[in-house]
Amino acid sequence: MTFVLTDWMNPQLLQVEQALMQWTDPEAPAGLGQAMRYAVLDGGKRLRPLLVLAAAQAVGGDSASSGPAALRAACAIELIHAYSLVHDDMPCMDNDVLRRGKPTVHVQFGEAQALLAGDALQALAFELITPDDGSVPPLVQAALAGLLSRAAGYQGMAGGQAIDLASVGLALSEAQLRQMHRLKTGALLLCSVQMGAVCAGQPEAKVMTALRHFGEALGLAFQVVDDILDVISDSATLGKTAGKDVAADKPTYVALMGLAPAQAYAAQLHQQALAALDASGLPLAQTLALRALADMVIHRNN
Amino acid sequence: MTFVLTDWMNPQLLQVEQALMQWTDPEAPAGLGQAMRYAVLDGGKRLRPLLVLAAAQAVGGDSASSGPAALRAACAIELIHAYSLVHDDMPCMDNDVLRRGKPTVHVQFGEAQALLAGDALQALAFELITPDDGSVPPLVQAALAGLLSRAAGYQGMAGGQAIDLASVGLALSEAQLRQMHRLKTGALLLCSVQMGAVCAGQPEAKVMTALRHFGEALGLAFQVVDDILDVISDSATLGKTAGKDVAADKPTYVALMGLAPAQAYAAQLHQQALAALDASGLPLAQTLALRALADMVIHRNN
Repeated sequence: MTFVLTDWMNPQLLQVEQALMQWTDPEAPAGLGQAMRYAVLDGGKRLRPLLVLAAAQAVGGDSASSGPAALRAACAIELIHAYSLVHDDMPCMDNDVLRRGKPTVHVQFGEAQALLAGDALQALAFELITPDDGSVPPLVQAALAGLLSRAAGYQGMAGGQAIDLASVGLALSEAQLRQMHRLKTGALLLCSVQMGAVCAGQPEAKVMTALRHFGEALGLAFQVVDDILDVISDSATLGKTAGKDVAADKPTYVALMGLAPAQAYAAQLHQQALAALDASGLPLAQTLALRALADMVIHRNN
Repeated sequence: MTFVLTDWMNPQLLQVEQALMQWTDPEAPAGLGQAMRYAVLDGGKRLRPLLVLAAAQAVGGDSASSGPAALRAACAIELIHAYSLVHDDMPCMDNDVLRRGKPTVHVQFGEAQALLAGDALQALAFELITPDDGSVPPLVQAALAGLLSRAAGYQGMAGGQAIDLASVGLALSEAQLRQMHRLKTGALLLCSVQMGAVCAGQPEAKVMTALRHFGEALGLAFQVVDDILDVISDSATLGKTAGKDVAADKPTYVALMGLAPAQAYAAQLHQQALAALDASGLPLAQTLALRALADMVIHRNN
């Protein structure tokens, strides 16, 4: 059985880009729409949307991954990710001026508009998954909004950012570092997988547990690879400032473990993620996209 | 038929305060919970929660206003309101140091934590209305999340703030001013009424239309009174800096119309709001709390 990721991925990416373009209104008042679109369109790997669509396919096959719920969930989680980058880049946070090779939103539109654009993107994420046109069952809408709000908030991404903020210059243990990343980046990656599954109906508990294990391992692997890339890559390849974790004295897996052990740890997490899919009982053919995305996360260079 | 607002209101306020205290976790990571609680607890008139509960009662009687959906919706909209104040007060926006007589969140906790606390409060609002304990039907959860996201986002509050930001020092027409306020403050007040109604089940179209008219008139009246108070009141009574609209050269109804015509306009909107309730067909007794809240909005001094 051969599976070529790009054959699966490219039409999905096209669909996501078109939907994001359609659902971010350039006519939103007083330049807000332009700032929102600048933050979202034409950039980013779209890993989270791809995970949503791949997880929907893993659980429900093509009909689930091509349905309106999965596309809306895919775009919603990307909006949450995009808003977090906008706010993260602001002067009071990481004070970054470059993102995906472009000036950051506050550099381009001013701090006040960046703040508002982030806020509006978060609201829009919940708007996308609660359409009033009958295309997504209320049960699915409620489940999606429940998952997304918890992953984005104090128990998830925002909580992880607060830990990150408080930990600069501190010597974290591996357990503390893992907790920070589990919330900061892991929660949203796990949520992508869970949202995709929920779009395919009400999966049995065994499947949801396996997908949780997959999502947790993948989320952690993502961060370990991120820390490795910050050390071994350059700004042009990354599309953002390389070496900034070291410069900011931020705790990283590389700082904690050393480079080679961090690479070995990433490989181990990769295998854990694939093993979770093996244990899910889902048809192998339906999980190929999720497996290929896990490979991509490990082997990416930006 | 006598109705004493405080007799109705005080138990509701107690319930809302207790729920907000329960649902904002002081253990949220790295000080985030403390900043979130500081932003929400022990302050504010709780007008929006009261509108939710009063609207639930108007449509469904005591059983609706005392049910879990209404309390969750009441707290959710207050969290959205609270987050908007936190972000609004930040240096890149209004740069306010005083709110409800206390230092603003960024003064107390730093800008980065204020930004995160606002973000986390928005997510928590959606978390509250999507409980996974079976207490709120999925149909109601989906309807609440749909209403709240639209009222908070680019078509609502965030859009209004963008217009506000862009309009400082500009001469707005009354139509432009009304549009700004319809989004900036009106959308959330209207949403409070709509969320309350939805908590009582699926009200008929005639009722929803009447409540929309009520909420729109009330929202506009609220802003006109706000502009009047900015001119005629002092900082101690307001609990925030008086005269700041004039100082910032912001467009207001008083600036546009003059003081006495603005007062007459507020009285006219008050009557429109009450007339909408008359036209709703709802039992008079069930609408007394909504009517009394409308009176309070007009006659408040802070």
